[in-house]
Formats: sequence, C-alpha cells, structure tokens
Amino acid sequence: MAQLRVAIAGATGYTGEELLRLLLHHPHVHLTYLAASAKWDRPTPVSVVHPRFARQTDLSIEALDPATLAASCDVAFLALPHGTSMGLMPALRDRIKVIDLSGDFRLQDPALYPRWYQFEHAQPKLLSGADVAYGLTEYYRDAIRSARLIANPGCYATSILLAVLPLFQAKLVAEGRFLVDAKSGLSGAGRKADTSLLFTEMTENLRAYKVNQHQHMPEVLQEVSRLTGQHAKMGFVPQILPVTRGLISTIYVKVKASTEAIERAYQAAYPAQAAPFVRVRPGVLPQLRDVVETNFCDIGFVYDPDLEYLIVGSALDNLTKGAAGQAIQNLNVMSGWPETTGLL
Amino acid sequence: MAQLRVAIAGATGYTGEELLRLLLHHPHVHLTYLAASAKWDRPTPVSVVHPRFARQTDLSIEALDPATLAASCDVAFLALPHGTSMGLMPALRDRIKVIDLSGDFRLQDPALYPRWYQFEHAQPKLLSGADVAYGLTEYYRDAIRSARLIANPGCYATSILLAVLPLFQAKLVAEGRFLVDAKSGLSGAGRKADTSLLFTEMTENLRAYKVNQHQHMPEVLQEVSRLTGQHAKMGFVPQILPVTRGLISTIYVKVKASTEAIERAYQAAYPAQAAPFVRVRPGVLPQLRDVVETNFCDIGFVYDPDLEYLIVGSALDNLTKGAAGQAIQNLNVMSGWPETTGLL
Amino acid sequence: MAQLRVAIAGATGYTGEELLRLLLHHPHVHLTYLAASAKWDRPTPVSVVHPRFARQTDLSIEALDPATLAASCDVAFLALPHGTSMGLMPALRDRIKVIDLSGDFRLQDPALYPRWYQFEHAQPKLLSGADVAYGLTEYYRDAIRSARLIANPGCYATSILLAVLPLFQAKLVAEGRFLVDAKSGLSGAGRKADTSLLFTEMTENLRAYKVNQHQHMPEVLQEVSRLTGQHAKMGFVPQILPVTRGLISTIYVKVKASTEAIERAYQAAYPAQAAPFVRVRPGVLPQLRDVVETNFCDIGFVYDPDLEYLIVGSALDNLTKGAAGQAIQNLNVMSGWPETTGLL
Amino acid sequence: MAQLRVAIAGATGYTGEELLRLLLHHPHVHLTYLAASAKWDRPTPVSVVHPRFARQTDLSIEALDPATLAASCDVAFLALPHGTSMGLMPALRDRIKVIDLSGDFRLQDPALYPRWYQFEHAQPKLLSGADVAYGLTEYYRDAIRSARLIANPGCYATSILLAVLPLFQAKLVAEGRFLVDAKSGLSGAGRKADTSLLFTEMTENLRAYKVNQHQHMPEVLQEVSRLTGQHAKMGFVPQILPVTRGLISTIYVKVKASTEAIERAYQAAYPAQAAPFVRVRPGVLPQLRDVVETNFCDIGFVYDPDLEYLIVGSALDNLTKGAAGQAIQNLNVMSGWPETTGLL
Repeated sequence: MAQLRVAIAGATGYTGEELLRLLLHHPHVHLTYLAASAKWDRPTPVSVVHPRFARQTDLSIEALDPATLAASCDVAFLALPHGTSMGLMPALRDRIKVIDLSGDFRLQDPALYPRWYQFEHAQPKLLSGADVAYGLTEYYRDAIRSARLIANPGCYATSILLAVLPLFQAKLVAEGRFLVDAKSGLSGAGRKADTSLLFTEMTENLRAYKVNQHQHMPEVLQEVSRLTGQHAKMGFVPQILPVTRGLISTIYVKVKASTEAIERAYQAAYPAQAAPFVRVRPGVLPQLRDVVETNFCDIGFVYDPDLEYLIVGSALDNLTKGAAGQAIQNLNVMSGWPETTGLL
Repeated sequence: MAQLRVAIAGATGYTGEELLRLLLHHPHVHLTYLAASAKWDRPTPVSVVHPRFARQTDLSIEALDPATLAASCDVAFLALPHGTSMGLMPALRDRIKVIDLSGDFRLQDPALYPRWYQFEHAQPKLLSGADVAYGLTEYYRDAIRSARLIANPGCYATSILLAVLPLFQAKLVAEGRFLVDAKSGLSGAGRKADTSLLFTEMTENLRAYKVNQHQHMPEVLQEVSRLTGQHAKMGFVPQILPVTRGLISTIYVKVKASTEAIERAYQAAYPAQAAPFVRVRPGVLPQLRDVVETNFCDIGFVYDPDLEYLIVGSALDNLTKGAAGQAIQNLNVMSGWPETTGLL
Repeated sequence: MAQLRVAIAGATGYTGEELLRLLLHHPHVHLTYLAASAKWDRPTPVSVVHPRFARQTDLSIEALDPATLAASCDVAFLALPHGTSMGLMPALRDRIKVIDLSGDFRLQDPALYPRWYQFEHAQPKLLSGADVAYGLTEYYRDAIRSARLIANPGCYATSILLAVLPLFQAKLVAEGRFLVDAKSGLSGAGRKADTSLLFTEMTENLRAYKVNQHQHMPEVLQEVSRLTGQHAKMGFVPQILPVTRGLISTIYVKVKASTEAIERAYQAAYPAQAAPFVRVRPGVLPQLRDVVETNFCDIGFVYDPDLEYLIVGSALDNLTKGAAGQAIQNLNVMSGWPETTGLL
Repeated sequence: MAQLRVAIAGATGYTGEELLRLLLHHPHVHLTYLAASAKWDRPTPVSVVHPRFARQTDLSIEALDPATLAASCDVAFLALPHGTSMGLMPALRDRIKVIDLSGDFRLQDPALYPRWYQFEHAQPKLLSGADVAYGLTEYYRDAIRSARLIANPGCYATSILLAVLPLFQAKLVAEGRFLVDAKSGLSGAGRKADTSLLFTEMTENLRAYKVNQHQHMPEVLQEVSRLTGQHAKMGFVPQILPVTRGLISTIYVKVKASTEAIERAYQAAYPAQAAPFVRVRPGVLPQLRDVVETNFCDIGFVYDPDLEYLIVGSALDNLTKGAAGQAIQNLNVMSGWPETTGLL
C-alpha cells in the first residue's frame, strides 16, 4: 500500500509529541513535514527537541510556513494553540485535508467563540460547512469519511460525551441535567511557562479551575443536542491532578431506570466489534492507569436505584483518545484503514 | 500550668505519628506512655521507629498493655485499627478520659456495625452513653467539655459535615440529597502492606473504591439527622489520589436559594472568632496544598442559580483536621485551653 | 514467516507485564502459555489481572506447570523470583530454549550464590555450560545466537556494564576502581506487599539500600573480568527514586586520558548501526525521561582533566533494556531477526 | 522578653515562604515588614499571596523600598535573587543587621563572581569585612554573634561542608579530592516560570545540570581552605529529583583510615549537646523524609577499607537547614537565644 504523506504543525507541544510517538510507527504514514510555530528559529532535528526520539527519525522541525505545509502532504494535523488554525485555512483548504486538534472548529455557532475562547472567529462559514466533521469517531464515522476538515474533540468533551450520549439516546436522563467532576493530568495544560504548572506547585496538590466556565461545556451541550435532540444543562468542575497524563470524568446523572436498562444502553452504544476503543465495565469505576498511553476510553458505572443518581466514570488518556490518538483514529477512518491501525 | 499526662496507643501508624508530631511540642502536654499493638515485640525508641523524631524525645514505644495505659495518664488517644478500642474500654473507662480515633464509637446504633464495619459491637451501651461525645468540635463543644469518651470523626465525615451542615441548618437543601466526589491522599489508608497501595500502583493513577459503600456514609447521615432533624441521602465516590496527605470533598447539592443566602449560611455557621479552624471562601474551590499539615478546613463554593446545583469544596488534611489535629482540638476543649493551643 | 511459539512464566509481576506489553504486538511471536507461580489459584484472563490489556488478548494466566510449559512453546521467558528458575531447568532444558530474567544463571561461580543470593545453587554445572550465554546483547551476540539458556542481565548491571566496558577495553581506568551512584524507580523492587514500598513511604523521598552489598556487584565485576581481563573494584550506592520506571547509574572513574580518547572509546564500542539501542552523548548526562518505556540505554559523560575523574551517566528503563526489552532483543538475536524487531 | 523587630525582603518566593512559616510562630520575633521585589504592584495580604497562612497573620506584602526596610526592623532577612542584596547594602548597612540568603556575600574573592554568578560585585570590600560572617552555624558561632551581615550558606554547600569538614579537620582525606553526587528537590530552583521546571517535565524524571559548574563549588572549596587550611578539588553532579523539598549529597572520598577514626571525627565535630541540628548515623545513609520540614542535617556513612573510598550521605531540607532554618538558627545565635528557638 502506498504511504500517505502526513504533516504535523505544532510538533513541539505535548500533543504534537504524542502525534509523533504514534505516527513514527504507523504502517501507512510517511511523515513529510514537521513545523513548530511561525516564530521557530531554525530547522532543528526532532532528536534535539525531543531527545527520546533520537535514532527513530532524521526529520527536523521548522518554522511553520502555510504554503510549504500545503505542498508537503495529503493530510495535516494541526496541534496549535486555540485561534491559530482558523487563520491557516485559506492557505490549506483547497489543497489538503486537515485534522485540527484545537478548539477552532468545534463549535458550530460563531457567536459562542468570543465568550468561550476570547476571540472572534475568522472563518465563521466554515463552522457549519458540509465537509467539516466533528471528530468524535464513535458517533461521526460517516461524516469523517467524507470530510476535508475534522474538528478533533476536546479531551474532557470526549470523555463526557462517550459517557452521557448513550444515556440521552436511551432517554434515561431525568431533568436534562448532569454534573461532571473531572480530573486531568497536567499535560492537558500544555508545555507553558506558567508558575501554576510548576512541579513544586502541583505535586501533592489538587486544584479546581474554570468551574462552570470551561470551553468544553458548550462543545458537550452542542453535541448532546445535535445527536439526541435534547437540550441539557451541565455542572462542570475541571481539576488538575498531580499526574502527567490521563483524565477521569466522574459524572452524576439523575435517572429513572433499572440497572439493566442502563447497561443495555451502554452495550448498544458500544458493541466491542464496532467500537474497539470503548471498554464498558458495569459495576466498577475505571482507574487512570488502565488507559494511560492507550487510545481506550474505559466507562464504568454504579447505580443505586434508591438514590436515583447514576454514577459514571469515564477514563482516557488526554493526549491519546483525548487528542492525538483519536485524531489518528479519524485519519484511519478517512483513509479506509481499520480503525485501530497504528493504535494498539 | 501543670502538664496533663497524655498517652498514645497506636503510635506507629500514620495517625499516631501525626499525634506525636503535634503533641511533642504541645505546651501543656506531657507524654507519658506510647504503645503500638499488643503484639509489639519490645520497647523501641521513637527515634528508631520514626527517625525524623530523633533528638526530639527519649520515649520508647512498647506493647500495648491496657492496665499500664490506664495508670500512665489522664487522657489517652487511641489510634488503633477499627474494632480494637471497644475491647479496651472496660479497662480504661473509669480511670481515664479517652479520645478514640477509630470508628468504634462514631455510630450510635449498634445494629449498623455489622454492615459498615464487619463486626458486632462489644460495648453497645456505650454508643449512646451520656458522657460520650462525637468529636466534631465545631458542633459539639459543650458535649466535648463534659465527655469522658470522645469518638473522633472520620476524615471524610469531617470534611463533608462541615460543608453540608450549614446548608441543612439553613434549610437550603432540595430533595434531601447530595453527592460527594471525594479525593484523599494515601495516608488515609494507613501503613499497610497492601500491593494496591504501592508507589508503583498509585503514582500517576487515580482510583475509586467503596462507591456508595464507605463506612463514613452512615456517620454523616446520622449527624445530619441529629443536628438538623433532616433525613438525607447521599451518593459517595471516595477516590485515592497520588498524594500522601490531604483530602478534598467536592459536594453537589441541589438547592433553591440565592447566592447570598448560601454565603450567609456559611458565615453564620463559622464566624472567624468562634470557629478558628474553618476558613470560608465564597466563589472559589479550595486547593489541597493550602491545608496540608494544618488543622484548617477550607470551604469554598460556586453556585449557578440557573443550574440549581451548588458546588462546595471542602479541603482538609486527613491526618490533622481529619484525625490527630481535631483530636487535639478536642483535648483543648476538654481541658479548657484555647482551641488552637499547639495547633498553629 | 511462521510465528515462534513463546511462553511467559511469571506473567503477573512488573517484568512479566512488560514482556506482555511488548510481545502482544511482536510481529513474529505467538504467545501460547502464560503462567504465574505454582500457587496461582485458577486460570484468570489477562484482562482481569492486567485490565490495561483488555481487548488485546484472550489469553489466561494459570498456575505454573513445568511440563505444560515445556510442551507449549519453542522459547520460554522466565520472570520469576530469584532461586526459582534453577529448579525448573531439569524439566525444560532438553525441550525448549529459555531466557531467564532472574539472577539464577548470571554468576559463573556457584560459590558466590550463598553470599549474594542467600541460596545454594541447585544446578551448579549449568552456570558455565557451553550453551549458556550472558545476555548483555551488545557484547555476547555470538554466544546468544547459539545458546539454549540465556541469563538476562540485571538492570543495574546492564546500565553499569554498558558504561564501563568501553573504558576498561580501552585501558583508560586508573587504579582499577570505579564508584556507582545509582538511582532506580520502584518497579525494580517488584510488586511486593512491603510497607517500605508504599506510596506514602516513597513519594517525596529518596532512600539508599544495600550499599556495597547489592547482588549486581559480582555480576558487574565478573563481566569486566571476562570481557577485558581486568580485575576491578567498585563502590555501589543503589537508591530508590520516587518514580515508577527508569534507572540512572552515575559513575565516577579515575582516568588518565584525553576527552578525545574517552569519546573514541565509546564511539568504537557502540557504532550507531551495530548497536541500535545504545545512544552515546558526549558532554551531557542523560535524563530519565528520554529512555522510559524504550529499549535505549543513553550514555553521556563529562570529563574534567584537572580533576582526573570522568563522570559517566548511563540511563535506561529498568523494565525494558534492564529486563524485558533486552530479553526480547536477545530473542531477536537468537532467532535471526533484526535486533530491533518489536522494540521500537 | 522584648520582641525583636524583623523584616523579610523576598517574601513571595519559596525561601521567603519558609521564613514566614517559621517566623510567624517564633516566640521572640515580631514581623514588621514584608516585601516582594521593587516591581511588586501594591500591598497584598499574605493570605492572598500564600493562602495557607490565612488566619495566621494580618500582614501585607509590599514593594521593596530600602529606606522603609531599614526603618522597620532590627534585623532583615533578604531572600532575593542573586545580585540584588549587594545593591541594597548602602541603604541598610549602618542601620540594621542583615541575614542575606543569596550568594552575594558568600565568596570572599570578588574575582570569583563574574565566573560563578555572572556579575561584577558592587560591594567588593564588604566581602572580607570584619563584621561579615559566613553563616554555617556549626563552624562560625563566634563570628555570627558579632556580625552585622551574615552570608547564609547555599543549600548544597551546607550539606557538603557539614559532611566533609570533619574529614578534612581530622586529615583523613587522601589526594585532597572528593566527588559529590547531589540530588535536590525542585524548590531549590525557586518559583520561576521555566518550562524545564514544569510538573510534566519533572515527574517520573531525574536530571543533572551544571555538572562541575555549579556556583556552590567555589563556596565549598573556600570554606574547606579557610577552616582546615587544605586546598581541595571536587567533582560535582547536582541533580533535580521529582520531589519538592529536601536534598541529599552523596559524597565519595578516598581515605586511608579506620572506620573508628572516621566515626571519631564525626562525633568530635558534632557532639549532640553542642550541635543540636546535626544527627550523625554511622553505618547507614540517610533518607530524605527524615529531614524534610526540619532544620536537621542527617549525616551517615559507610566505609569499606578494601575499596578505600568512604561514602557519606548528608541530607537536609534545602528550604530549612539549607536556607530559612539555618538563617533563623543564625538569628538565634546573634540574639543570644538558644540555637533551637522556634526551630523544633
């Protein structure tokens, strides 16, 4: 099989590093171009930027040039800060397919960007374009197959949506409301020179942030509405854990249902053959280390009918299923390869 | 002022070590007797068992002998495994005051012990004795002053009760229900040779356990009922964090109230002068590191009237305010000393 | 190419888990039999013992039976406690090839076992058998190719030998002495219910053990002697780091040489083509994270001619190049496959 | 006893925070003025900058003004970046006593500053002033008593000097050379927005830096020379450990001596009564957690006469005995109080 030519823009951050880790050994991918930001100084070997990859590639990382990017590849992964990808689309749009890992194309309503992302959207028409797909693989395979631009979901959004969509689809959610107590490793915050992310500030610590204000909230609610027609509300407490990778969303949902109905809803949504990366575990909540460095999302739940609240745990690696891994899962779907190619 | 003679039974565990750390420098306390379990081999200097205390005491830790304990002191702290203290009470009861840090005297109904603690209670009449107090200092100061036996609260129970009691007292809780997503450091599990507590199993991990099954649940519900007359239900997800010390309970409560009413309820419950160890912080959720190695409980909250769920964070150090520190706070109250003596 | 039938004895420990991680996706290996110890209760799916491997294999782990093991495979990996493999050899020796990851066959002189391993050797003649190879791949490829029993090196021994052998070979070591300050993650101690390995004891800690008494010392000195004919002495401070995986040996060697001579010695020993897993980095000491979860050994050095001491850092992952990875590297050599097969 | 008026300049960094932790409860100290840097925006309550100190002080931290500082106190602690204190001395020198925790006054030879600290010294005459003392308490008590300016030692320097000085004094060191493999927690690097100090970069990592280039080297060698008249050379590998606090220097010294002579040298240097903060432990190397958050330096050693290298471990908390604690120990000596006041 001919190799697909693939580029990565944003190859110096944690998500870019994870894309590299996975794509360097993907059997059908030929990496052709690696870029940092436009301000990057000079081409620098990957083995200097990420010494762990020494001996695994001779590629260099260079300053991002949109024209070079467009010419270099069939598909580009953009792992850039929010607000950057949209500016690149005019140069890329007609020439290559794009899998964007930022928030730039996740929300369909441009009016939401100023509030949740603090910028006016530069390409509002693209947001609801016919060839733009939301890359939650398990729910949008058909759209992904024909898309030219994929908005890869946020890490929290992926873990929450995979957990709550089966409940909404089966009409089990009472009062249209759910609460998410989410805990993420620090790689979710990126490689930023920020004192609040120092080892000394976060080891032996736990800290909440953006309570009820996180930009993944409108993304989750949009998809609940699009996919199930229900308008929901959510409470959201994102928290930083003293770990590098991995994320667990613990979700509290008021339901009126039997344990069997709940289990049926999950089994129907994620049959093992059709959804190879979602592992459903009735009766137990998942732990972080079973998913770290994998593309799996583990979903477990505990239900006490007397309490009427269902408790769901949804665990994934924020850099893999929550970012680079799902992006490659989408690449596989787009390319007609088995969904697990290069991901096991 | 004459020194009070004080003993510790269970001086080798984490709670016993924390009692030592605090009592070695308490201005009114003279440590007279330190015991491990009855199976302890031979008297061993504290500096051998806990090398960090070398040069700070010449005491030794010896095998627990109830008669020697009773003769040695005015007040004994019992930091022993659940189910041990009740067997010692006949030897101690008429001779000394006891502050028990296990679960043995926390539940008033003896019928609850087989289910939640897996033993039949050996001293059922003591559970509702007139001179037995539940040691949640902020709510039971009068009873503590006159008690001869104090049941020191559980670590989760302390954090949860301090957070929810003001809401129940102010009648703000809708549907009598609340959900607790709690995260604790590993010292809460004690110094046990258990592979699930190994560094290698818990670093870079997060794990839930005893979901809706933890023995602090009946303790919390009993006190909500005793102190506010309301019968509540709770959902409870205790989780082990990869940190040594500290605990945060994130609590989700359906309320119908204004933000002001909620703030008033907390300020009324914990005026700074009268409750020196509860720090209320409206509008933000607390972080772990502000309370570690202190006797403070930090309570913060965020309320979105549109969502109708109040989110409360309650943080404390499980070994201090959640165990040894509150026990000493109770000793101070019993002894008529300022509540903060030896705890700042 | 036909698949090789491979078994793992000791599949529940950390080394066994790492063998599984790597062999589940090795292109030429077919796993046929997984055993724990002889006391294992009943066959248990891998996905129950190691939930992270759910969906990746249907195999079960069963009680170790030597006859079944011998019948099941062409090559067996033994990842068992020290002192166990030697007892299995009569049942296995004539039937299958064995790669042993314990210390049972690392020392050629049986008289060393009582002192360093606390047991009398049960198969002393095997220790110097013609078809037994010491599995330090970079130095014993020919012997490995024809061996039927491979003594896979210890983790510390691998890191130290790869660093000091080029210096001894080039006759650069003054006074025949070197000092090793080694730091290892806790997985090196295995999955043992030992309070000294608890998270609470090791987070925010660093602890030395077996100073000048560690069983990898005679292994290192034996190989320096066999491979270079020089009798050396070493000082050795093994230390446990609060990390899960990875090991760095910092080595202090008195030398009389130029920086160029030192660099030549390393480049001669490990040309990139011939030694794909040793990465030499003159002028800098390696960091742990560049080697974790890889089969690389990174060697860096700093030399101050005025001081006359060369400082060498040698970093590897104790579970990969220090155990399971090198074992598979040896399997590849034995089988005539490229040395990196399944290891990148 | 009247309270001494004390100020802290640099109260926002880790060392300043540790000074606060200790001085807030020092029985003879009255904190009068807390300053950050000159660029600090506006006076901010301590409880906002360091929420853990809420309820423990009403003080605010303000922009550093030298004249205000000089007027506010009898003694000032300067916990400022290297190169800052020397510029303040003209304003402070004749008015108050100063305990400086930077490197500005540690080296007596001004010519050393450009190489080791990258600046020309602004007050070269002060470096060898009669009323300037090097604050290694155990060796300079007389000078400290009469000093007006104390150069508080570096954290590595303290741990190394306390370990090697007894050996040099007893003339046990062969070849005048020693090697130091030192491991420090990240708080030693300060609260700096530097990506190399992020949690994500340092958890599960170990990294060497400034090998044979660290600025504590000339400080150590100067003091060995001043105190013992011997000119030594040292090799030095400082390493960052994934812990917050604490530092261990493992020191390799070629000696020709008996174990008894070595033990006598340490016991003579640090009798328990006269050196309350140095705990000597023959035969074992110290662990980090026994000294964290204490002012102790634990020194242990292992000697193998056949190897001829003595191995010494010297552990302390870099923020306490390595900085703020020793500074207060010096304040106690200057003030005629017992050396342990406020430090146990």
